[in-house]
Amino acid sequence: MQLLKDRIIAEGRVLNSSILKVDSFLNHQIDPFLMKVMGEEFAKRFKTDGVTKILTIEASGIAVAVMAGLALNVPVVFARKKKSSATVEETYAAKVYSFTKAETNYITVAKHFMPSNERVLIIDDFLANGEAALGLAEIVRQAGSTVVGIGIVIEKAFQPGAKKLADAGYRVESLARIASFENNKVNFA
Amino acid sequence: MQLLKDRIIAEGRVLNSSILKVDSFLNHQIDPFLMKVMGEEFAKRFKTDGVTKILTIEASGIAVAVMAGLALNVPVVFARKKKSSATVEETYAAKVYSFTKAETNYITVAKHFMPSNERVLIIDDFLANGEAALGLAEIVRQAGSTVVGIGIVIEKAFQPGAKKLADAGYRVESLARIASFENNKVNFA
Repeated sequence: MQLLKDRIIAEGRVLNSSILKVDSFLNHQIDPFLMKVMGEEFAKRFKTDGVTKILTIEASGIAVAVMAGLALNVPVVFARKKKSSATVEETYAAKVYSFTKAETNYITVAKHFMPSNERVLIIDDFLANGEAALGLAEIVRQAGSTVVGIGIVIEKAFQPGAKKLADAGYRVESLARIASFENNKVNFA
Repeated sequence: MQLLKDRIIAEGRVLNSSILKVDSFLNHQIDPFLMKVMGEEFAKRFKTDGVTKILTIEASGIAVAVMAGLALNVPVVFARKKKSSATVEETYAAKVYSFTKAETNYITVAKHFMPSNERVLIIDDFLANGEAALGLAEIVRQAGSTVVGIGIVIEKAFQPGAKKLADAGYRVESLARIASFENNKVNFA
């Protein structure tokens, strides 16, 4: 999506060979209009897939997921991150390792909001190693529901996440795909 | 706002004399259309106040704040919650005590996204003891910007937050004001 690529070029900050900061419009400060356009783009790409629910993860996935939910007229559920595995009986949980933070978190979703037989669109802000998306997909599997696809705002195509998700049989739709970072510059795939 | 009150009556669960769970449309599962209507209502109430930025707090405040930001055409910044006070030089921080969780968190905002001379609308999902709103207002004060008002989705008017904010001189606009919980029933103010 050109609008997103333009913003990444204008405002993204390449911190090292794998970290891109886009906290001026996505991860800390949020541009509501860009979220709306991106949410509508996800809705367009999945409009014939019978999506009944969107699943995302706190906090940066929420804004774009809610805009996609508005366009598709479906509810959005956000998984919560927890440090410990202590979950109550009423939640589904999956383990997610963060390479950036070098720590394991658990993500949880109340069973009540993820019943069986839903057709779930997973949305997240970044795809790098695929840990978060695989964790969300694991929760959908535990619930007995179906992942119809995974919508990603920014895919770092040089990291293994996209291949892992494809190998697991998931359809991935990314709004911007980054091939590499070179000399603090972003090269799109 | 009647639409919100109807949802609270239909889906809110009163857990004890002070806790109301509305996680089917606000705090865990999110109803995007309701968020849009509420965001537009905040925009209407503050449309002549020259708002230049919205400040909220992760995670439940983000959806409605982004809808308000879309309607007012201003960026949204969400404060991050942290367990420790270890902040870097580039952030503003304030201490927030959670009575529900009986723990102190620190909320932080990158200085870069909260410059001076902004006219800031604070938005949050709940107002109970006022700790979160006061922490957000403290960050705006540190930045040398102005709080033009505080928009709250659900105010528990029987708890001291609203009075604390009024005493501190802040204008509070709540979409639903709850006077009390009685026999698992919500009484609006």
